[in-house]
Amino acid sequence: MAPLDDIRFSLDAVAELSAILELDGFDHVDSDLVDAMLGEAARICTEVIGPLNAVGDKSGSVLVDGQVRTPEGWSQAYEIFSAGGWGSLPIDMSFGGGGLPWLVANCVTEMVSGANMAFVACSILSQGSVDMLIAHGSETLQQTYLPKLVDGTWTGTMNLTEPDAGSDVGALRCRAERAADGTYRIFGTKIFITYGDHDLADNIVHLVLARTSDAPVGTKGISCFIVPKVLVNDDGTLGEENDVTCLSLEHKMGIHASPTAVMSFGDEDGAVGYLIGEENHGMRYMFTMMNVARLQVGLQAVGVAERAYRQAAQYAFDRRQGRAVGAAAGPSLIAEHADVARMLIDMRAHIEAMRGIAMLNAAAIDRESHASEPDEREAAAGRAALLTPINKGWCTDRSVAVTSTAIQVHGGLGFIEETGVAQHYRDTRITPIYEGTNGIQAIDLVTRKLPMGSGRVIGEFFDEIEQHVALLFGADIEVGPLGDNMTSALSSARMVTRWLTDTFGTDPNEVLAGATPFLDLMGLLSGGYVHVRRALAAPSGDAELVAARLATARFYGEQILPRVFSLVPMVMAGSETLFAIDEAAWSR
Amino acid sequence: MAPLDDIRFSLDAVAELSAILELDGFDHVDSDLVDAMLGEAARICTEVIGPLNAVGDKSGSVLVDGQVRTPEGWSQAYEIFSAGGWGSLPIDMSFGGGGLPWLVANCVTEMVSGANMAFVACSILSQGSVDMLIAHGSETLQQTYLPKLVDGTWTGTMNLTEPDAGSDVGALRCRAERAADGTYRIFGTKIFITYGDHDLADNIVHLVLARTSDAPVGTKGISCFIVPKVLVNDDGTLGEENDVTCLSLEHKMGIHASPTAVMSFGDEDGAVGYLIGEENHGMRYMFTMMNVARLQVGLQAVGVAERAYRQAAQYAFDRRQGRAVGAAAGPSLIAEHADVARMLIDMRAHIEAMRGIAMLNAAAIDRESHASEPDEREAAAGRAALLTPINKGWCTDRSVAVTSTAIQVHGGLGFIEETGVAQHYRDTRITPIYEGTNGIQAIDLVTRKLPMGSGRVIGEFFDEIEQHVALLFGADIEVGPLGDNMTSALSSARMVTRWLTDTFGTDPNEVLAGATPFLDLMGLLSGGYVHVRRALAAPSGDAELVAARLATARFYGEQILPRVFSLVPMVMAGSETLFAIDEAAWSR
Repeated sequence: MAPLDDIRFSLDAVAELSAILELDGFDHVDSDLVDAMLGEAARICTEVIGPLNAVGDKSGSVLVDGQVRTPEGWSQAYEIFSAGGWGSLPIDMSFGGGGLPWLVANCVTEMVSGANMAFVACSILSQGSVDMLIAHGSETLQQTYLPKLVDGTWTGTMNLTEPDAGSDVGALRCRAERAADGTYRIFGTKIFITYGDHDLADNIVHLVLARTSDAPVGTKGISCFIVPKVLVNDDGTLGEENDVTCLSLEHKMGIHASPTAVMSFGDEDGAVGYLIGEENHGMRYMFTMMNVARLQVGLQAVGVAERAYRQAAQYAFDRRQGRAVGAAAGPSLIAEHADVARMLIDMRAHIEAMRGIAMLNAAAIDRESHASEPDEREAAAGRAALLTPINKGWCTDRSVAVTSTAIQVHGGLGFIEETGVAQHYRDTRITPIYEGTNGIQAIDLVTRKLPMGSGRVIGEFFDEIEQHVALLFGADIEVGPLGDNMTSALSSARMVTRWLTDTFGTDPNEVLAGATPFLDLMGLLSGGYVHVRRALAAPSGDAELVAARLATARFYGEQILPRVFSLVPMVMAGSETLFAIDEAAWSR
Repeated sequence: MAPLDDIRFSLDAVAELSAILELDGFDHVDSDLVDAMLGEAARICTEVIGPLNAVGDKSGSVLVDGQVRTPEGWSQAYEIFSAGGWGSLPIDMSFGGGGLPWLVANCVTEMVSGANMAFVACSILSQGSVDMLIAHGSETLQQTYLPKLVDGTWTGTMNLTEPDAGSDVGALRCRAERAADGTYRIFGTKIFITYGDHDLADNIVHLVLARTSDAPVGTKGISCFIVPKVLVNDDGTLGEENDVTCLSLEHKMGIHASPTAVMSFGDEDGAVGYLIGEENHGMRYMFTMMNVARLQVGLQAVGVAERAYRQAAQYAFDRRQGRAVGAAAGPSLIAEHADVARMLIDMRAHIEAMRGIAMLNAAAIDRESHASEPDEREAAAGRAALLTPINKGWCTDRSVAVTSTAIQVHGGLGFIEETGVAQHYRDTRITPIYEGTNGIQAIDLVTRKLPMGSGRVIGEFFDEIEQHVALLFGADIEVGPLGDNMTSALSSARMVTRWLTDTFGTDPNEVLAGATPFLDLMGLLSGGYVHVRRALAAPSGDAELVAARLATARFYGEQILPRVFSLVPMVMAGSETLFAIDEAAWSR
């Protein structure tokens, strides 16, 4: 079921796995280990986690007497997953993790997402909590919480959103009062808390953003606290229940089994919280984890899209209907009809591009923390920061489109829930929303990422693309207009980037008006870059796959990439038209 | 709730309502009547039908002891709807209908679809049965069935699809045996039968496609039968149950209240069926109704998109978050942020284009049957045939996109079912599938519609667009690059049309490979034409709405229409790349 062939190819062709494995700290990892691990992960996805996907959709997680119950089979699957160390692959070995590059660990995240998107969210959030504690937690907090979060005995959550603080995190009002013993008492309500309560683990470690009474307004007054569901005694055993309540679960369009909780802290005397790092630095701490968290949402989107594609391809080579052009007699496989073949290759070419972008992003994150030279680390940090909104925004939007196409391939059956493909469409629709809506990603891209290094960061990315396109022209590889269209697309991208940069100082709203089309344009260009690298590496090995890789690269260059040119006027159109409709007229 | 302002404006500006009302047979209709009727329809939608939308989604229609139960309140709403004659507005007055032009009746269909898409399907199917009986039924069949179908005492269904005959209707195997008394006995199973059973009416009149034992293979051997759920005595009273069973209902992603049945005919001695017209002509009869049926699916898509848009606009002018550029202090309405304003105007500009295309299509259908001159009728028939796949395919695809954008405006709340906007997204996803998938529409467009009149039909449409673009250049109307981009888009459309026409004879698969992008291109162009007509008619009346109309026309021309240019290479790319992947490689 899992796309092992393409993951392995992408790791080498797009993300230069061998170079990542040569970075400091990865001596224990080699190519054979990666192969073995991916194979085993695929097996668990197929045998254990994947089969629970439909079950989870149907029964969902439910709140019973203040305690969330996950669907049948969920606990056992979580035990197998944790016992295998699958949740802690990217955690440093000194803390009990697998010590793998994000690049490699993320392949597992993609596969598990494809198997069961609602399931994977739990371990993604635990990884986030672990990262936060390692980066900013005191030694005491680390000793108390890290071992059990790493081995999966406990899980972690992120508590940011409040009813009036969604995209604007700085507006949050959750209160933290200093207690005499150096701890804090937390009061407030948080919404949209993924796995805010569940029955998979003995304890739940909530990371909660709150502000002290004397904190500055906005994001500069946010502090970050550890608030365990059950208090931990000095000897590490579990003590009393903390003042933390799961008030309700949301009834969502998709990922039914992933409990999305309304959490209340401090209904009685206040929930006991432990400060991470210093007061008022919480937002900065969150930002250090944001690249990985957003990358992982992109991976969920890739995984679900891949599964939907595979289901559609299987159906298209099973279902017969009508007589295809050139067929001696009908009924033909629907895959033999040009319009269905178009849908299949469109999905496949997009997914390969998405996977490649996610890998470029992950490799940059690995270089950021493991490269030996400071300037290499700095360059990688810039690249990771640049690719994060592109990956999150573009891959999630494309996942919605790919899963929709997978429904369409199924015809009427696609609309029937038992077919299973509708679930992918419903599940993945959250990915453009959570972990920062795609609008927020686009704004982040144009306002924070373009100016990095006075334009050097994006300029170096463009240069790298240009160099690879030049290699493609130098090589004897048949991929139609991919090279020519990449040259034009790159030129367009440079042009609109200059315009955005020049305009931002004088009229920021013009730039904000073009943010979403610019993100789309950068995603298309980055996907084209992925296909250039794939094409450069394609002409060796399995002939069947070589032909397929060249076909998707050609299709991407010929039929997907030209959308860049229709985005250029959108990026530069300005904001005047957007605001030309009077408030009263919008609802008439 | 209903978009009365824009419907009224579109009727005049785009569809020339006054000219349609001057056609033969519409003496009893005038502009005031239209206004009064639309207002009353809007009231019923708001007060009666709309409130049942969420109820219907939640409880759905269910099968209990072989009988389908619709949700609570459904029956009462259906009674009010029927008693008001809302289901038979376009039926000729001589048969008891309202005798309205489709153009006008369809405005009600759009509104009811927006209020409750699952509800409207029942009356759409009844209208189809009535049309079929009027056009092809014997006088006896007409006398027996028409009065009660028209007044809504009974309802109608269409039984085409079978498990192995979906897009390929000609593959159907349902059997019809001649009986000694001139009737037939029908045997077979039909799937995806909308309102195949329900509790809204005393009887259900099934139109069933089947073949006699000596019929030719394929579509040329299909006959069409009336098969009532309950047999009708000679005196018109209801007699015995017919041998018709509702086996099960599908569990669907959306339109839960619209029962989608598996129907079994002839489990015992055979279901009694009455031949419509002649044997083996069933497919031709179905084709005569196809334009209207497909148009109505497009209308469902427009109605749901409009409702989703309104909900999003309301939220965007209610929800505050962050501080918009230029605002003195936050939090600002999210509508004041450029990225949200972009989403709103994008939805609005698309919906106006969709509504206009549907109206152009309806007006052509009215001229086809009511124009006084034969050549006018013939030209209108061609135009209706051309616009039908464009309307059905493009409007339904855009409806999926618009409802998705409406979710995005809501952020996390959009994914929560109680918000209601997710239902629109789930409901409308069926529209690109049923009544001929959009792939089938695209194939119909390039293989049947382009060749009509040796290219004259589409050529005349292009000429008409060109004339209106010329008027726009001659007028002093500020709509940015709409005129220039329409000129280029028209030139592109003519070019690819020539290429498709020239290529079809020698290599049909090249044309089929470009069918879907060509339909998209024609939809974009047609939508641009709608906005040209809107802009030409805009500069008078309510200043607030004038500004809004010019803004959406400009936005469409500037930011939506340029996608045409990225579609041109897709249309002409050919089929080679699509088929370059080996069967075994698709699932690797």
